[in-house]
Amino acid sequence: MTKIPHRLYLTEDQMPKQWYNLRADMPEQPDPMLNPATLQPATEEELYPVFCKDLAHQEMDATTRYIDIPEEIQEMYKIYRPSPLIRAYNLEKALETPAKIYYKFEGNNTSGSHKLNSAIAQAYYAKKQGLTCLTTETGAGQWGTALSEACAYFGLDLTVYMVKVSYNQKPYRKAVMQTFDANVIASPSDTTNAGRQILAKDPNTGGSLGCAISEAIEKAVSTEGCRYVLGSVLNQVLLHQSIIGLESKKAMEILGEYPDVIIGCAGGGSNLGGLIAPFMQDKLTGKANPRIVAVEPASCPSLTRGKYAYDFCDTGKVTPLARMYTLGSGFMPSANHAGGLRYHGMSPILSKLYHDGYMEAVAVEQTKVFDAATTFAKYETILPAPESAHAIRAAMDEAIKCKETGEEKTILFGLTGTGYFDMTAYQAYHDGNMTDYVPTDADLQKGFDGLPKVD
Amino acid sequence: MTKIPHRLYLTEDQMPKQWYNLRADMPEQPDPMLNPATLQPATEEELYPVFCKDLAHQEMDATTRYIDIPEEIQEMYKIYRPSPLIRAYNLEKALETPAKIYYKFEGNNTSGSHKLNSAIAQAYYAKKQGLTCLTTETGAGQWGTALSEACAYFGLDLTVYMVKVSYNQKPYRKAVMQTFDANVIASPSDTTNAGRQILAKDPNTGGSLGCAISEAIEKAVSTEGCRYVLGSVLNQVLLHQSIIGLESKKAMEILGEYPDVIIGCAGGGSNLGGLIAPFMQDKLTGKANPRIVAVEPASCPSLTRGKYAYDFCDTGKVTPLARMYTLGSGFMPSANHAGGLRYHGMSPILSKLYHDGYMEAVAVEQTKVFDAATTFAKYETILPAPESAHAIRAAMDEAIKCKETGEEKTILFGLTGTGYFDMTAYQAYHDGNMTDYVPTDADLQKGFDGLPKVD
Repeated sequence: MTKIPHRLYLTEDQMPKQWYNLRADMPEQPDPMLNPATLQPATEEELYPVFCKDLAHQEMDATTRYIDIPEEIQEMYKIYRPSPLIRAYNLEKALETPAKIYYKFEGNNTSGSHKLNSAIAQAYYAKKQGLTCLTTETGAGQWGTALSEACAYFGLDLTVYMVKVSYNQKPYRKAVMQTFDANVIASPSDTTNAGRQILAKDPNTGGSLGCAISEAIEKAVSTEGCRYVLGSVLNQVLLHQSIIGLESKKAMEILGEYPDVIIGCAGGGSNLGGLIAPFMQDKLTGKANPRIVAVEPASCPSLTRGKYAYDFCDTGKVTPLARMYTLGSGFMPSANHAGGLRYHGMSPILSKLYHDGYMEAVAVEQTKVFDAATTFAKYETILPAPESAHAIRAAMDEAIKCKETGEEKTILFGLTGTGYFDMTAYQAYHDGNMTDYVPTDADLQKGFDGLPKVD
Repeated sequence: MTKIPHRLYLTEDQMPKQWYNLRADMPEQPDPMLNPATLQPATEEELYPVFCKDLAHQEMDATTRYIDIPEEIQEMYKIYRPSPLIRAYNLEKALETPAKIYYKFEGNNTSGSHKLNSAIAQAYYAKKQGLTCLTTETGAGQWGTALSEACAYFGLDLTVYMVKVSYNQKPYRKAVMQTFDANVIASPSDTTNAGRQILAKDPNTGGSLGCAISEAIEKAVSTEGCRYVLGSVLNQVLLHQSIIGLESKKAMEILGEYPDVIIGCAGGGSNLGGLIAPFMQDKLTGKANPRIVAVEPASCPSLTRGKYAYDFCDTGKVTPLARMYTLGSGFMPSANHAGGLRYHGMSPILSKLYHDGYMEAVAVEQTKVFDAATTFAKYETILPAPESAHAIRAAMDEAIKCKETGEEKTILFGLTGTGYFDMTAYQAYHDGNMTDYVPTDADLQKGFDGLPKVD
């Protein structure tokens, strides 16, 4: 019937044994992180109170091209990896496109997303250093779930500060994390000074990601053997997520394919940075010249409408400063925006590559994203996460363009996860209650006004 | 590290191209279905108003050993199959057992379970006959979701009668079905005479599976081009589900393995019958002698405490009579019983095999099932459906016995699906609010008193 199979799984022998560090091939490096007190470049040692040593080293290491994946992590990866590279035959047929559409599906694990790839690495290195506990924050809950799984596996205590409004609206996410023994606390809480101060001002607040980060960091630095971890934005996270791109590229090689265009959704950049890594390497080293497209929500358009500037990584303004595309750390996406991809900034690595013209970016509106999600579900029988559906929307638009032009492009996109815990948003879409929101220039200016004065 | 991979996926070439019809190798056939009006064996033609012709034929065909899977169905299977055969290395290590534990994982599709294997077949044959719509009922929602996907794929209208209490308690399941364009109606409804009558008596009723079946059948027989379909119990369903066992056996052959014991959860028998089919063939034909174990909830113990008798397949008493292990069609499991496996009877094929001594059965209590589910989730990073966790419980108990005896048994169990839509039950477990319920003999006697007088 079909020569190329619907799904290709690498064998265990074919799985990557090293991560790929994209910075090693970048002609210009991202600007260094700055200590917000001194405005001097942060050193590896300065990161030790926050990150365990191996991760602090990975965060700063811009020269080692390939980094061995420790065997313990490889073993854990084998429990849910390799993830399949899938040829979307049915979607192609439905769109009547001459394009070939491939997607790398990262949702076949209980966290429901690619987040587990870095959660395992971060938990492993913490354990290796003899730490006993981790803290983090979670909004939509994918990262919290992934880290809960990783901590259960390596025997680390985990405290997750979950934004109170999500904690109340998504009780199922909380129950999943509890299945993996995580201590899930609605933020703001009375377990930290930061939380108590906010509660004193406004006992009925629904909380914010910024507040949850502040609580998680306070808890980590005030607890013996504890560190704070983060699921996106950081260089180390992109390094771990390179497994997505390395597997994808290997699988496409086996099929005799190479993508003309690579598409990924972008919030903080963890999935996109991982997916594109080895293809961007080809581009940076002149071996190939695929188009690389970041897709972001029109309601949180950090690449397409943000500023390339130094900013805090958190709304609480306690982290080092990073130069990145940002809407300002005070920017909050509209409440009507479903799912993740709510981050005000973008990975410094991806920001630099975009700034230097190696990447494109598009912003898509929410209802069109859900149109794509439901079409995709019907033809490919996977219910996508709203985040992932941003990439589906852009991939479908590319394929529809190919129908018009007759081009037989090979499209690769990243399907980061499943939408089982996002049915409230799907229901709103089915009921016709979903709306679009695009911030005005004046809305954005408020965020830009809060940018720290660095230069 | 390990010679046998964590996960084995067959290639598309290795996927079964025929289903296996277990009846062809049974030394004695199950007793025939009876027309409840005449108490005479039902004929194939008598089934035509309810089932489309190909399915009616499959229902009655006890002699054709292998039945070609139509190419259209094979193509659809390739969208989510083959499912992996997974070696539970981590669970083995955690249990310190010398046993080798394998499981066949059927949850990697949006329906979250094995139900899609038969839903696709039933939708395909309906489409082939020129029908335009199907009806069904759903309780927990896995079957309704699977059939919604299949109908969206083949372009059939689908009406799902969902028990009202589930409709209200599981809005997310409804939203998933709506994503696949299903018309989901809370039952009882005012769309049928059956529903209106029940509502007239008790406007506030939460509904029952029996009532939903009655409405779905009424809707099907009163609508041009429409048929009613069912996701378990039937011979045709076991035939379609044989793909689970065929893939499992093939994968184990590739690994040079053969199970000493095969374990599956059992509600109506769709998963168990499919998983064991080719192994039971070996047993019936003297080629091998594996133990085969059905696991049922202690709160709905049709095999371990039911009667082998003629009974209606539905609580509304409109279906033909089947001889099977049954608790009586009026039996309702306790409200505290989470998840599926609530059916009063058991597949006539499995009932006959159990009656004739080819199978064992165990009943397990709910809290012990959730103990197993959470342990499994931690070590294997898959959150199991409560139904599937019954098999996990029994597999773990076997492995623990092996630790005591030192036996290096090879255990195979079926992991039918994921528990993402069962977090209410998991939360009850985490909160210590989950209880066990075992019906008394007097409770069961009430169900037996309602059995039809046939002999």
